[in-house]
Amino acid sequence: MSYRIDCLQYANWSEKIFRQMREGGVDAVHVTVAYHETFRETVLNLEAWNRWFELYPDLIVKGQLASDIDVAKDKGKTAVFFGFQNPSPIEDDIGLVEILHTLGARFMQLSYNNQSLLATGCYEAEDPGLTRMGRQVIREMNRVGLVIDMSHSADRSTIEAADLSQRPITITHANPHCWQPALRNKRDEVIRAVTQNGGIMGFSLYPHHLMNKSDCTLESFCDMIADTVAKFGVEHFGIGSDLCQDQPDSIVEWMRVGRWSKDIDYGEGSANAPGFPAMPDWFRDNRDFGNIETGLRAKGFSDAEIAGLLGDNWYRFFQSNFTPQTA
Amino acid sequence: MSYRIDCLQYANWSEKIFRQMREGGVDAVHVTVAYHETFRETVLNLEAWNRWFELYPDLIVKGQLASDIDVAKDKGKTAVFFGFQNPSPIEDDIGLVEILHTLGARFMQLSYNNQSLLATGCYEAEDPGLTRMGRQVIREMNRVGLVIDMSHSADRSTIEAADLSQRPITITHANPHCWQPALRNKRDEVIRAVTQNGGIMGFSLYPHHLMNKSDCTLESFCDMIADTVAKFGVEHFGIGSDLCQDQPDSIVEWMRVGRWSKDIDYGEGSANAPGFPAMPDWFRDNRDFGNIETGLRAKGFSDAEIAGLLGDNWYRFFQSNFTPQTA
Repeated sequence: MSYRIDCLQYANWSEKIFRQMREGGVDAVHVTVAYHETFRETVLNLEAWNRWFELYPDLIVKGQLASDIDVAKDKGKTAVFFGFQNPSPIEDDIGLVEILHTLGARFMQLSYNNQSLLATGCYEAEDPGLTRMGRQVIREMNRVGLVIDMSHSADRSTIEAADLSQRPITITHANPHCWQPALRNKRDEVIRAVTQNGGIMGFSLYPHHLMNKSDCTLESFCDMIADTVAKFGVEHFGIGSDLCQDQPDSIVEWMRVGRWSKDIDYGEGSANAPGFPAMPDWFRDNRDFGNIETGLRAKGFSDAEIAGLLGDNWYRFFQSNFTPQTA
Repeated sequence: MSYRIDCLQYANWSEKIFRQMREGGVDAVHVTVAYHETFRETVLNLEAWNRWFELYPDLIVKGQLASDIDVAKDKGKTAVFFGFQNPSPIEDDIGLVEILHTLGARFMQLSYNNQSLLATGCYEAEDPGLTRMGRQVIREMNRVGLVIDMSHSADRSTIEAADLSQRPITITHANPHCWQPALRNKRDEVIRAVTQNGGIMGFSLYPHHLMNKSDCTLESFCDMIADTVAKFGVEHFGIGSDLCQDQPDSIVEWMRVGRWSKDIDYGEGSANAPGFPAMPDWFRDNRDFGNIETGLRAKGFSDAEIAGLLGDNWYRFFQSNFTPQTA
């Protein structure tokens, strides 16, 4: 059995997109349910997902365990797993880690661009590593089975999290810094710390993370994958497309500025290009996962390697990391 | 006119304590209304104060401007000014700075022992200085007239706040580290940064901040004041007693651990001495401010210096820092 799993999307969800996931053969997707939301606001977003599950039972189903993907695949649906890009849903309360896991959360970033109560974000000037609360929360996330995601965290915090965590951690959506030197892309020592401890990184299709951005070619993307897996091992990688389909520019502003600044912060954009950049023409949306498969095959990857990169590696990771820690 | 002002207390408030403030001649007090409270929880604490003001109109009155102290003094009451020991009441929302100032907040610490969204606390292993959000929030606090308090912040964050802020900042309650090397006490370079920018530090009576703790003598305390004001200027100091009268040990645990850890953190205490230490016998509570005056007089301070230290310095600070910034 081989799976197609996208380990990060934040679309403006609609029946159209749920149908496109089926067209693209996406068996499971990790969706963002919070950027800067408080606990209560996050619960509102979970309520919205409950309504979508109720409205589109033939297309989507809530995912909590890896085995939910098998059930979904068998019935031609997409299993939807929840995650947070910031620890804002737990506010200052370590007890909310278990509560949110019970509600379905499976991934949580320890910081999003800025300093959080737990760890430093990739846009801060300096990174002193994990905070006192961060060390406590990592232990609690390990215990309940909430996966640490360091996609938007700074380097030292990420390496410390990979080393301190008793379970493997992730970078659900990013690319190597040596290929495209965005602040958000990851240096080799960061990728090494995550992968050598059993973790997985998802390759991103977000144009600011691609060489030549929206003009990036499929061949360049697959070359980057070949170079990266040669260094760190193919079993440690997957896809985390960072697809933000149909979102208005107001959403990219919410992601970047939240409520923390009265000034606009353009993140990886600029005053001249404040919105979402155009996706590359070979990956417009969920229907185009087949193009990545074609590109990898042209690069000479084996069937097993392609299956691993497109979903099986994430599947195995889901199998061992979403349930409570065994003594 | 000379004033007696205590710039930090967190008592288990009662009619008894309000009457003791009158006995001690305390014209104004800065009270803590939040340690780890969210915005909504902070509002509940403000509601409790509104009930006390309604119940004890002959003893206490809400303070918003320095001139409220004159009205209070004239009628034999204590003016009560609100402050936060952590930025938790503004959560992640810069817009709450102005809202909370309107509700009466006049001081806010940028961090409390731990890393916050704004600055580093004094118990973290490293201090990278102000965060991106911290820099935005300082500007907003300056604009509306919410005073920055760095009593529980780490050194570099404090120095950066003193330098970045366009208005003077405070350390409402602490003593020099060279006198009693508690993590929370302040090194000379920190005191210098705050005072050279027009700020004020309040001397603390909290036993962990005193040489020989609960056994500290009045003479030693006044010697320390004499040494400190000789270095930095008498006009930059006052009293911030940190009196936590009648609080149960559960409250010191809330202050130290909040909701951020499942383990107990003893702060400046220890497993053998987890609760509040006994106050020195010459400063049991609000009735004993006269003892400090006696001690300072014995040390040779002039009437004007004593008046400044016991309240007039804080009064002048209140006069220029609680109202919006003028262009």
